[in-house]
Amino acid sequence: MQCVLTPDTEGYDQIDSITTGASVLVEGLVASSQGGKQKVELKVSKISVIGESDPTSFPIQKKRASREFLRSVAHLRPRTNTFGAVARVRNALAYATHKFFQDNGFVWVASPIITASDCEGAGEQFYVTTLISNSAEGGSLVKDIPSTKDGRVDWSQDFFCKPAFLTVSGQLNGETYATALSDIYTFGPTFRAENSNTSRHLAEFWVKYILENCKEDMDFFNTWIEKGIIDRLNDVVEKNFVHLSYSDAIELLVGSKKKFEFPVKWGLDLQSEHERYITEVAFGGRPVIIRDYPKEIKAFYMRQNDDGKTVAAMDLLVPRVGELIGGSQREERLDYLEARLDEQNLNKDSYWWYLDLRRYGSVPHAGFGLGFERLVQFATGMDNIRDTIPFPRVPGSAEF
Amino acid sequence: MQCVLTPDTEGYDQIDSITTGASVLVEGLVASSQGGKQKVELKVSKISVIGESDPTSFPIQKKRASREFLRSVAHLRPRTNTFGAVARVRNALAYATHKFFQDNGFVWVASPIITASDCEGAGEQFYVTTLISNSAEGGSLVKDIPSTKDGRVDWSQDFFCKPAFLTVSGQLNGETYATALSDIYTFGPTFRAENSNTSRHLAEFWVKYILENCKEDMDFFNTWIEKGIIDRLNDVVEKNFVHLSYSDAIELLVGSKKKFEFPVKWGLDLQSEHERYITEVAFGGRPVIIRDYPKEIKAFYMRQNDDGKTVAAMDLLVPRVGELIGGSQREERLDYLEARLDEQNLNKDSYWWYLDLRRYGSVPHAGFGLGFERLVQFATGMDNIRDTIPFPRVPGSAEF
Repeated sequence: MQCVLTPDTEGYDQIDSITTGASVLVEGLVASSQGGKQKVELKVSKISVIGESDPTSFPIQKKRASREFLRSVAHLRPRTNTFGAVARVRNALAYATHKFFQDNGFVWVASPIITASDCEGAGEQFYVTTLISNSAEGGSLVKDIPSTKDGRVDWSQDFFCKPAFLTVSGQLNGETYATALSDIYTFGPTFRAENSNTSRHLAEFWVKYILENCKEDMDFFNTWIEKGIIDRLNDVVEKNFVHLSYSDAIELLVGSKKKFEFPVKWGLDLQSEHERYITEVAFGGRPVIIRDYPKEIKAFYMRQNDDGKTVAAMDLLVPRVGELIGGSQREERLDYLEARLDEQNLNKDSYWWYLDLRRYGSVPHAGFGLGFERLVQFATGMDNIRDTIPFPRVPGSAEF
Repeated sequence: MQCVLTPDTEGYDQIDSITTGASVLVEGLVASSQGGKQKVELKVSKISVIGESDPTSFPIQKKRASREFLRSVAHLRPRTNTFGAVARVRNALAYATHKFFQDNGFVWVASPIITASDCEGAGEQFYVTTLISNSAEGGSLVKDIPSTKDGRVDWSQDFFCKPAFLTVSGQLNGETYATALSDIYTFGPTFRAENSNTSRHLAEFWVKYILENCKEDMDFFNTWIEKGIIDRLNDVVEKNFVHLSYSDAIELLVGSKKKFEFPVKWGLDLQSEHERYITEVAFGGRPVIIRDYPKEIKAFYMRQNDDGKTVAAMDLLVPRVGELIGGSQREERLDYLEARLDEQNLNKDSYWWYLDLRRYGSVPHAGFGLGFERLVQFATGMDNIRDTIPFPRVPGSAEF
């Protein structure tokens, strides 16, 4: 808001302390503005400086700072227009997610962060451990790490008495509650216990919610970050979603005669270039749901279709971002699930509790998940996913 | 719900498969019940078994299973009355938290899980690392962990190029957004940017919310888990909270002549026995807010009072659980904060970004946090905190 001061304003003598980054307390009257840039302005009757800010060292100067630089001052970037708006839209999307599921009778379940089951993508997981001692002066010594006689890490002395990891997904855990309470969700990944159009309704609900509740911020993104984003989001609400089988999608891509970096044939895991072609070019900006993917490119827990070749999986593709949501019906048949674990050389013993859900009172159920940061990206038009989360963690950086 | 079948019911021939743990699909008419145990029952016209359950191996038999045993089958315990009810009340408390803050204009901020700043309680943190290799047959070899010439762990080869930990608190990160956007909260710990009665209003809101929205489940807890819990919760809504300074609390405890395990004198960190005496005995079940604690027993970031001895901290004590919420005004004065870091032998360099918030446009602000599982315990009457979270993580166990 534009604040108008005159030499008569109480506190006018502090004006030299009002530099970029300073905090001020302002009192006055809101009046219609004479300039064209804003509708109203504040005629200040009193101003006082709450916290000063050294103008020579404050890292964010008035000139536009690059996104890369702002990431290095992630503790101050929320004070900028862009990151303030991202934070508010992100908040609205999160609350809309909770509200949607709560209004529809779903129960939120906290899925664990730490897991001892090395379930998906072994080797790409983070270990969580207290075996490393930080008591040695000058840095932890490798020889202080407890080891067995044959020089192996002695997990029995670790906090959980076995190797533990940061989980890569809470969705297997989610199924334990889905098969007990019916409709549930976790936040992050989301679940529900039946085939339905929930993911589509949720996408519409999100978009409506932010267009209604974050109007000013969305205007900001429309003007400064990605022109046309509001129209693009309106399309999600107004246009019908396209439904397409994977096989038909492959046919469409082959028929397009377009040269892709990854050549198209049945069995290919669709890449971003294919997904964006389908939703942006082939269907002119409409969201597209692709279903029935080859089982070889999908996870072991997805339900096998009767053709023996595909699984009941679905991805929701949107313009610019590609895959926003991925889901599937889960394999509820014990024998099929065990066969899939064998095929993928996964150890059935580590899945004992997941298999129990099929042993005792198994029910048909399905679920879907989405990357929340990708959603924020879709809704705000921000280029880099690292700018959609307050404190990004990437190789080489876990600052703040 | 009681389901009444007759030999004429369609699917009656499957009755032998309807064992504990099985899933069935039931159709019929709801009718007023002839027995006294329930108001309505279902006169079943059709029943079919969806998923069978081997009665000899299904782990939870009809006889009451112990809580300890149920923890070992955490994937099946949500199917019991008690854990179903806990899950629903927990869900309601979480949503009430979001709704309260959203309705009051707070912005939810995702605080990071992984942090490179070894801020509070070094040595009691979990390391997060990719330095341990799991490629060796028979278990990870200690000698495969990258080391420097002098035998120290070579952090430069770790994922974040330095030691990284699971965070013990998101509250310092929360302040970066509180000083940018004003009122914010994280979920877990909660924040707001001014002194207020928010924590009290929130506690009332929670209790009202679950009493209204989880009536059946609360009746269940009142009958089976902790008799009188509904009255106790009503007290939170109806009775005034007591306000008391720490010094007055010490005087009260000394004057009580009660023999405590930890003898009472000024400077003592109040233990559960003291907290429960104050709220349960001295004030007959009323929630009590204690403020102005000795600075020696509180965190470095709490604002020093003018007496030089105490800090502007407050704890909310409730019957049975003791401390439910802890909060404080934060030290917004750079020189005081630096002096406190020095006093506690903390390294100012690792707090560069936290100090920046005081260097540039510092503002008075305050925040509070609560243990969400403790809240669930308070609301349900469950004895053991491990029974208030779907998948508890404790020394020696990170199952499921």
